Amino acid sequence: MKILVLGGDGYCGWATSLYLSARGHHIAVADSLVRREWDRELGVETLTPVASIQERLRVWQRVSGKKISFFEGDITNYQFLASTIEAFEPEAVVHFAEQRSAPYSMIDREHAVSTQVNNVVGTMNLLFALRELAPDCHLVKLGTMGEYGTPNIDIEEGYIEIEHNGRKDVLPFPKQPGSFYHLSKVHDSHNIMFACRIWGIRATDLNQGVVYGTSTDETDLDPLLINRFDYDEIFGTVLNRFCVQAAVGHPLTVYGKGGQTRGYLDIRDTVRCIEIACLTPAKPGEFRVFNQFTEQFRVLELARMVKEAAKKLGLKVEIDHLPGPRVELEEHYYNAKHSKLVELGLEPHNLSKSLLDSLLNVAVAHRNRADSSLFMPRVNWRNTRNDRKQSIAAATVGD
Amino acid sequence: MKILVLGGDGYCGWATSLYLSARGHHIAVADSLVRREWDRELGVETLTPVASIQERLRVWQRVSGKKISFFEGDITNYQFLASTIEAFEPEAVVHFAEQRSAPYSMIDREHAVSTQVNNVVGTMNLLFALRELAPDCHLVKLGTMGEYGTPNIDIEEGYIEIEHNGRKDVLPFPKQPGSFYHLSKVHDSHNIMFACRIWGIRATDLNQGVVYGTSTDETDLDPLLINRFDYDEIFGTVLNRFCVQAAVGHPLTVYGKGGQTRGYLDIRDTVRCIEIACLTPAKPGEFRVFNQFTEQFRVLELARMVKEAAKKLGLKVEIDHLPGPRVELEEHYYNAKHSKLVELGLEPHNLSKSLLDSLLNVAVAHRNRADSSLFMPRVNWRNTRNDRKQSIAAATVGD
Repeated sequence: MKILVLGGDGYCGWATSLYLSARGHHIAVADSLVRREWDRELGVETLTPVASIQERLRVWQRVSGKKISFFEGDITNYQFLASTIEAFEPEAVVHFAEQRSAPYSMIDREHAVSTQVNNVVGTMNLLFALRELAPDCHLVKLGTMGEYGTPNIDIEEGYIEIEHNGRKDVLPFPKQPGSFYHLSKVHDSHNIMFACRIWGIRATDLNQGVVYGTSTDETDLDPLLINRFDYDEIFGTVLNRFCVQAAVGHPLTVYGKGGQTRGYLDIRDTVRCIEIACLTPAKPGEFRVFNQFTEQFRVLELARMVKEAAKKLGLKVEIDHLPGPRVELEEHYYNAKHSKLVELGLEPHNLSKSLLDSLLNVAVAHRNRADSSLFMPRVNWRNTRNDRKQSIAAATVGD
Repeated sequence: MKILVLGGDGYCGWATSLYLSARGHHIAVADSLVRREWDRELGVETLTPVASIQERLRVWQRVSGKKISFFEGDITNYQFLASTIEAFEPEAVVHFAEQRSAPYSMIDREHAVSTQVNNVVGTMNLLFALRELAPDCHLVKLGTMGEYGTPNIDIEEGYIEIEHNGRKDVLPFPKQPGSFYHLSKVHDSHNIMFACRIWGIRATDLNQGVVYGTSTDETDLDPLLINRFDYDEIFGTVLNRFCVQAAVGHPLTVYGKGGQTRGYLDIRDTVRCIEIACLTPAKPGEFRVFNQFTEQFRVLELARMVKEAAKKLGLKVEIDHLPGPRVELEEHYYNAKHSKLVELGLEPHNLSKSLLDSLLNVAVAHRNRADSSLFMPRVNWRNTRNDRKQSIAAATVGD
């Protein structure tokens, strides 16, 4: 299958591109490389030393015998996107090419606006390009479980049947996102649903949980194929951050009581879910929604699991409760459905097994690169301007 | 009360500014005048000859003795918006400053993207400016009934209590908007709701129906205070268009079967609703939603009412059914609640009474300015590029 991966140089995108390539699909990556630019802007770095995209692709071809094409450019530039789709003629487009950090979007007005414009315009361009140039191509879009927020009822997969005053309808599940980033994904979902309806586009929206882990069978084939491992307060997802903190002997930074419950999944499940979505495409005009996660945990529960696993490696770990920098409930009901991908063949990895072999060991292996000044939250949801390091303030002036 | 009207040179904005000024409020208008620019881009003109904003405000001061301040600029420019708020120190901001035409947003990719970016960024800037400079100021935002679409259940005012699997919650009413413009309003609503939650902003979202009529007590005071009367396929709302068509002897252009049901209101009720919202502000942190319309009609019903009223003026009117240029249901359930504004004191005008004294008579008085080539729909929702007149194609190249 010919699959174009937008944002294929990023964390999920890179693992996905290699996995799909290894499974025999014909893959092209399109990426503006702006994610690496944001690292420089923020003065942060992935724990793992990642190679340039050119080197990554060269090494992949050497070790696997498979070629991945690369298109460098930004999908907010319609001409770039259209010419890429015309040249590659994909059967499916996997769309990871968005700014994906909630704290990044909450730094200040400029970051909030740039996140929403970047994500919304990129996705709108893609919808127009598909309709004009590849109307049968299947759009596989990465959404987030954070679109739903934490309602006091069960979270369904995209839609909910509502009975009201004696009448019934199946309607989009109400959204209560918790950052300007999460809001951008809600905007995307509404835009895509509309394009499916008016133009017959086929789309799958994958409302993904928090992804953890770095290793996949493919990235493990060569050190130069290693994936990102973000642990800083801006781009580091919580489990990755906890593992690096454990590896360097820093207390785990739990925000507030730690009762925040979210869906999680191993990056090895991410890549498989994407393949499942590609192999069983949505119908023309269908806006299909899957909740893409495998287990749900409270944050404090995660901290305790990391502490426990770390003990087996001889690491002594403490847990700190910091004032929550986000505006969110610290204790709440949470029960999100996630059976559709399992019905289509997903066999989930469990965190309890992955912790040691795919998380803590990687964190320990690279702990000499960790900068513990990056652990502490500096972006507070309640502020409209969050001061960053001097060097960062200077770097963003030109935005 | 000190009220800043963003978009105060537009159709609803102008009537609102004069009404609030007449009622003794201290009014400032901020406007980029881009609405007049879009007329030039599209080669259309309001049926009524509207004066420049400078002349309008001069005449208003002469006839009423009241001064309205004017700030010329675009709220997508944060510096302009912030300095305006700092200078005027409003107690309420009424936000009309958005691209408000569904067909305009569906012309092509450029218009879809510019509509969403313009509306979303303007509103985000406003949220940040309020939080930073006027945290107690009440935001009165114009949304649209079109955010809801046409669900098969009753439409509530903003929120709905959902009982699901034995649990309950009150959640945002699910949205199914029908154009990239309507989508931009849904995006705004989500962004504003979030800002209320994290920053304690007080906001009222007025999901307005289709507005009709031109005359208000204030605009009738002098010919130079006359309001816009748009009747073209892009900016003309359906009732205004029908009245101009009746006035010039052109068949009324009903799209499809004409079973599309929507909420409508007289512009004299629009201005009163805005005042009611300002005088009874939302609480800090509250995102309050009112459905702002007074009656609901099927399009064919409207056409028949116009035909009937026109007969009294000696006008012979026919009704044409055109293929619907939009993707929408032509027959559907529709029952939208709209009691909150009435509870706060709104006394609605009825269309049956307004038709002759505020609509058809104005249309007839200015019918020599009507260009019947502007009636027919040229923007088809199913296309990604809608060819406009040659001159327009040339004018938009530089977008």
